[in-house]
Amino acid sequence: MADLLWPGDHRAGDHLTDAAVVRAALRVESAWLAALVAAGVAPSAAQVDVEPLAARLDLQALAVASEAGGNVVIPLLADVRERLAGPHPEAARWLHRGLTSQDVLDTALVLALRDAVDAVLTRLDEQVAALAALAERHRSDPMAGRTLTQHAVPITFGLKAAQWLHGVLDARDDLVDARDRLPAQVGGAAGTLAASAELLRLAVGGGDAVALAADLADRLALPHAPPWHTNRAPLTRVADSLVRATDACGRIAADVLVLARPEIAELAEPAVEGRGGSSTMPQKANPVLAVLVRRAALTTPGLAAQLHLAAATAVDERPDGAWHTEWSPLARLGRHTLTATSQTAELLAGLHVDTGRMARLVQAAGSGLLAEQRSLTGLVDGAATDDFDPTHYLGSTDALIDLLLARAASGGRHP
Amino acid sequence: MADLLWPGDHRAGDHLTDAAVVRAALRVESAWLAALVAAGVAPSAAQVDVEPLAARLDLQALAVASEAGGNVVIPLLADVRERLAGPHPEAARWLHRGLTSQDVLDTALVLALRDAVDAVLTRLDEQVAALAALAERHRSDPMAGRTLTQHAVPITFGLKAAQWLHGVLDARDDLVDARDRLPAQVGGAAGTLAASAELLRLAVGGGDAVALAADLADRLALPHAPPWHTNRAPLTRVADSLVRATDACGRIAADVLVLARPEIAELAEPAVEGRGGSSTMPQKANPVLAVLVRRAALTTPGLAAQLHLAAATAVDERPDGAWHTEWSPLARLGRHTLTATSQTAELLAGLHVDTGRMARLVQAAGSGLLAEQRSLTGLVDGAATDDFDPTHYLGSTDALIDLLLARAASGGRHP
Amino acid sequence: MADLLWPGDHRAGDHLTDAAVVRAALRVESAWLAALVAAGVAPSAAQVDVEPLAARLDLQALAVASEAGGNVVIPLLADVRERLAGPHPEAARWLHRGLTSQDVLDTALVLALRDAVDAVLTRLDEQVAALAALAERHRSDPMAGRTLTQHAVPITFGLKAAQWLHGVLDARDDLVDARDRLPAQVGGAAGTLAASAELLRLAVGGGDAVALAADLADRLALPHAPPWHTNRAPLTRVADSLVRATDACGRIAADVLVLARPEIAELAEPAVEGRGGSSTMPQKANPVLAVLVRRAALTTPGLAAQLHLAAATAVDERPDGAWHTEWSPLARLGRHTLTATSQTAELLAGLHVDTGRMARLVQAAGSGLLAEQRSLTGLVDGAATDDFDPTHYLGSTDALIDLLLARAASGGRHP
Amino acid sequence: MADLLWPGDHRAGDHLTDAAVVRAALRVESAWLAALVAAGVAPSAAQVDVEPLAARLDLQALAVASEAGGNVVIPLLADVRERLAGPHPEAARWLHRGLTSQDVLDTALVLALRDAVDAVLTRLDEQVAALAALAERHRSDPMAGRTLTQHAVPITFGLKAAQWLHGVLDARDDLVDARDRLPAQVGGAAGTLAASAELLRLAVGGGDAVALAADLADRLALPHAPPWHTNRAPLTRVADSLVRATDACGRIAADVLVLARPEIAELAEPAVEGRGGSSTMPQKANPVLAVLVRRAALTTPGLAAQLHLAAATAVDERPDGAWHTEWSPLARLGRHTLTATSQTAELLAGLHVDTGRMARLVQAAGSGLLAEQRSLTGLVDGAATDDFDPTHYLGSTDALIDLLLARAASGGRHP
Repeated sequence: MADLLWPGDHRAGDHLTDAAVVRAALRVESAWLAALVAAGVAPSAAQVDVEPLAARLDLQALAVASEAGGNVVIPLLADVRERLAGPHPEAARWLHRGLTSQDVLDTALVLALRDAVDAVLTRLDEQVAALAALAERHRSDPMAGRTLTQHAVPITFGLKAAQWLHGVLDARDDLVDARDRLPAQVGGAAGTLAASAELLRLAVGGGDAVALAADLADRLALPHAPPWHTNRAPLTRVADSLVRATDACGRIAADVLVLARPEIAELAEPAVEGRGGSSTMPQKANPVLAVLVRRAALTTPGLAAQLHLAAATAVDERPDGAWHTEWSPLARLGRHTLTATSQTAELLAGLHVDTGRMARLVQAAGSGLLAEQRSLTGLVDGAATDDFDPTHYLGSTDALIDLLLARAASGGRHP
Repeated sequence: MADLLWPGDHRAGDHLTDAAVVRAALRVESAWLAALVAAGVAPSAAQVDVEPLAARLDLQALAVASEAGGNVVIPLLADVRERLAGPHPEAARWLHRGLTSQDVLDTALVLALRDAVDAVLTRLDEQVAALAALAERHRSDPMAGRTLTQHAVPITFGLKAAQWLHGVLDARDDLVDARDRLPAQVGGAAGTLAASAELLRLAVGGGDAVALAADLADRLALPHAPPWHTNRAPLTRVADSLVRATDACGRIAADVLVLARPEIAELAEPAVEGRGGSSTMPQKANPVLAVLVRRAALTTPGLAAQLHLAAATAVDERPDGAWHTEWSPLARLGRHTLTATSQTAELLAGLHVDTGRMARLVQAAGSGLLAEQRSLTGLVDGAATDDFDPTHYLGSTDALIDLLLARAASGGRHP
Repeated sequence: MADLLWPGDHRAGDHLTDAAVVRAALRVESAWLAALVAAGVAPSAAQVDVEPLAARLDLQALAVASEAGGNVVIPLLADVRERLAGPHPEAARWLHRGLTSQDVLDTALVLALRDAVDAVLTRLDEQVAALAALAERHRSDPMAGRTLTQHAVPITFGLKAAQWLHGVLDARDDLVDARDRLPAQVGGAAGTLAASAELLRLAVGGGDAVALAADLADRLALPHAPPWHTNRAPLTRVADSLVRATDACGRIAADVLVLARPEIAELAEPAVEGRGGSSTMPQKANPVLAVLVRRAALTTPGLAAQLHLAAATAVDERPDGAWHTEWSPLARLGRHTLTATSQTAELLAGLHVDTGRMARLVQAAGSGLLAEQRSLTGLVDGAATDDFDPTHYLGSTDALIDLLLARAASGGRHP
Repeated sequence: MADLLWPGDHRAGDHLTDAAVVRAALRVESAWLAALVAAGVAPSAAQVDVEPLAARLDLQALAVASEAGGNVVIPLLADVRERLAGPHPEAARWLHRGLTSQDVLDTALVLALRDAVDAVLTRLDEQVAALAALAERHRSDPMAGRTLTQHAVPITFGLKAAQWLHGVLDARDDLVDARDRLPAQVGGAAGTLAASAELLRLAVGGGDAVALAADLADRLALPHAPPWHTNRAPLTRVADSLVRATDACGRIAADVLVLARPEIAELAEPAVEGRGGSSTMPQKANPVLAVLVRRAALTTPGLAAQLHLAAATAVDERPDGAWHTEWSPLARLGRHTLTATSQTAELLAGLHVDTGRMARLVQAAGSGLLAEQRSLTGLVDGAATDDFDPTHYLGSTDALIDLLLARAASGGRHP
């Protein structure tokens, strides 16, 4: 599955596709059957793994049928029940009993999202490794620092790489945190667990429906939480963190796009046969990875805002449209972030750094780059600078690189 | 093609799918071959209709290959050239000569978008017809007017329908206008038409490349304009107008969702076997069309904002990412609007209106609904009201309905 | 009034400030008093111009008091009635009779917005003049065309200026159209004009409340329309058009920011004493106008999306929060657009164009810039190019400039 | 300071106003002077607290002057230096030495934002207290659960309050976390601390500029971090968390708006003399707090998206417009959140709950509310339900309330 209108989308593989979500939904239903059996509610014959059925479903037909109930779960259940009826009548009978469609779809999205976030984290780890290497390797390679597009004071390319790293580390920390707080959803029709409790009462004379819900979460290796049908913080938190990841990538891409301009030419994308070409101009070597990363960075903030808007307009025990707005933006947000982090990781791993060109510009622009230093002359009585060499006016660059490399190495947070 | 995470998406059919865009791109290339032949640039053997090749292309492979150049046109051309090489060597040779990838993709999107807009306009026309009928039929059926959720003064359901119509008419007018201003894109590599001019010079000793570009537009029944590679007003204008359409639908859905609440129950969605059900509660009849329309209305403003953001960050002669952000949001915006306008049209055509219940509430709430009228007592010296009947305190409702029906009938604009 | 966190905001003067809106509200109430008198509803003593009272109001107190009713109109009326009670008891008695707060606030915002749009149009006209002059003056000054950040084929700076003009003309046309369709709002409590009709009945035995509403519109030189309390197209249309204006400005600023980079240095902002400085680096000459324009261009799309969101969530006869979201974003959108168009007009009027530097780059990059031309070699049998001079490979640049200049001169639309 | 177009804005007091930001900027400069003195760079006479000067500044003049440099810091420093020159020449001489304008403005915004977040947290604590009390008090008061606007199964109002609490607790946790990670900004012109290092070298023969930066952070009780001029995660994290707070409030307001409709009337806003009135209908009691909270909830997602967009388009060592977009949306986001959380706290503290009406509806709708329960009949062989009383079909409501109350009491996180 790859979206032709989002080049690079194949990098997101099968993550958060219709198929992935349906498969996850069947995984949830399977785990619930197992939980019902373990609780003594359903007979052991009801414990069937229905996830393999996913491969046999007609996703297009399901998509069409999903309009009638507003979501895919109702036609999905009808289809699965029919398939189970012959071979596994008890599973057909007990399938989904005690759950509501939002339980299944929310938990399925959480599972699919968690997988996608894990894949994003792998790409971020690759970026961290590449950036740490760049920061170390170019620790002493001076280049012009630029602010508001103009030359400012000298920096090193190592510091620039360390600053890129800074953003990636922040994004990684937040994403790990948000991922670990994605809970299973079990609440039943209106978040009371009434059907589960009733089934427990009928079957075993009572029992703890909250524990039953927690058992489902355990089986899916998800945290348990009270129902969150109308409290969407778990999703907005992941969405915000995904955007933080594309923010970090976008900031890198912005620099690459500037520094790869032919008049500057301090950086270049990794050369790959056939990449960066034009349909008409044979000489072109467009920085196409950075272009596509920038595209994602310009797009994802609006997608996360959509999740917040859904959270903010939730109403009743299950909402009248707000919930339904979440699925498509969330899937796109996850896939776009995965594509962008993958493209950025590749870009960084093969980035061409022309330190000679950087150094020549520093010498050529030296006078301007030292204007600040000269402005400090005379401030301290009796002390004078006689060293006006831009490659010496680098302040604490080394120490700052060390701080950021130490953080990358520790995996730990600091503000 | 139907998106399982956007129930109802099948209503958008094939509009703005990958396949539709690729087919439109080949239509553009075919028209350009024809234009080159007509201008005497290419030999008549080059005039081949390549659109039928669309059915034979591997869209997934094209999607994957589109990353290298940042858009689908390069791999598409490579594929088509290869297919043409044997049977139509002149067409293979002349294919795309003079164009740049953005020319083809922009024009293809314009063609696909225009088709989608036409489909939306058909749905809006259906809404206009349904709403005009509702306004006329319920012209004298009183109901409680509500403001800030509370009872205000009486209205009629006919006026409410006429006000819904008001929004739909505005949307329709703007959409027609925006549709008619979607131009073909022909500029060549940097908007100078240099390659076209060069080819004309080589082949026929000169000629008017602007006229050649205009000929392409004519062949596609599109207006001609100077290149708009970095002036995206044609697209933002359509995007804004599509949102205006979902705004109008969302406003209708919001009312239906309130008035179909069981405690109010003045309206109900058309009853359709199997629609509005729940996965667990057999009694449910959810207003699922309104729910799904509301979903779209909450989503599209962010999509159009994305188009503006692309327009606002365009740079150089063709942009470094801004352009690439447009395709996916535009396709979704078009499809979501088509789905929402179709759902709204169906909702309105079969809307159940309980005028008895409306009337009973007006009587029950009569005292409150007439508080404004009573507050006018004594204002005019010597004149007094002795008619405190909420069904008589309807002001110019009839005249306002007439104004809006007249506008619907004329198809014309007023502010 | 100037917002310290939005540098340049003083360029928007008093437009759309709290004071401007309150003054406009009093203008509406004055016109309504006059309309009531003209219709024979109120005695002639009620015809008082209350707009001058605006200067005496305590806006902070009004702002605080506005929470209780959710908008400023209620405390404003209380204050004005008190001031009128002594000198103009009939005006105090008749003030606002027949209107609802949304009538007044919507119409006041429309008046304030129309003034702001007029000011924006003046700035756009200045831009058109400056751009037409640049396009003409630099019609034959070649520069490198750039696409996806890399050198493409030659263009002229005249063509770039003409393309900037292209966007500005589109924005101007749309804004004029949207401005002219901003209607007065008169509907009364729930859009039925019931109170107006009742007053006409009591005072003169009947009469046309729609005509009374139209009279108010006439007095304010606004178009008349049926009530649009829940149909917000008039506002979203202006909002979208304002964004179209900042889109056009943002696209210009993006080019200036690239081309004013020291490594390129083909353009520079007008030098103004004290502008573009740094708090620490004395050598800096930051392109601060372009920076601030870019800021606006990145911000306004979200503001217009807010207006659409309000339109899409309108409910009942007057909404429960959607309406209240409009005021602040609309005011900021108007002011930011005015600031940005003013800054862009100034930037263009004094833009420094280094045609020598442009020309030298074209020569230096000539081989790459002609790669497309060379790729056409051999296509036309028997015809060969012997003219590989980048300043000759300019296609229809002149004709395209002419087309855009003609449009600027005519003031007319084409797609 | 109160924004007339954002009723209730006075609840945000002086937070994040122009004055507050300028005062905070002077606090930063004062702390820096102290740090320079402590480090032996500046003489002790340079240690002057310049914050009190804030009261004497002409903010309008500063706002106007801020355009020339793109931010307020340059004219602010010019003004302050002039005031210091006579009485405190050493302070005038050393003011701001080593910093860049972004250091000061970022840190000032962080200080102002932290204050605003603290105020928001106080309001959230009030909400937690009110909600915990409501959940406990109404633990056994049944009401109809509603999903997709229709009656579903019974809940209790205690559970609804506990679910509102759920969202508030999530928001509070995230906001505390984000607040504690707002660092001081010290990097100098291009994030190298070069000027600081140079001053240390000149004055004391060397020293640790990073330690000097950390000392500034300590003096302001902020965490220290490497420069984050182009890594805006600290701001987006707070922005996202503020939106999470308005999401939680918006979800509460949405319920109140539905349940306070006259046809439902299960909840009512606290009655306050003069609140909720209409300009024309004397009977109205509009739920104005909920209306205004909903307004904020619909608005803030777009503001946070703006912060992400700034983060995603940062470039160079300090950006060319992205940075400048942050200030106004951030100030509005902080103020709007403070207003909304304050209004929600007040709404909850005085919320009128009509448990009798809730109970009567449960009885009247009982049959529908028990459809799910009846559908479970026969599932468990040999077990039958003879208890069809909607007030008994409440599942684990009590246990879920306990879980959420325990979390409220502990202040701790769970997913």
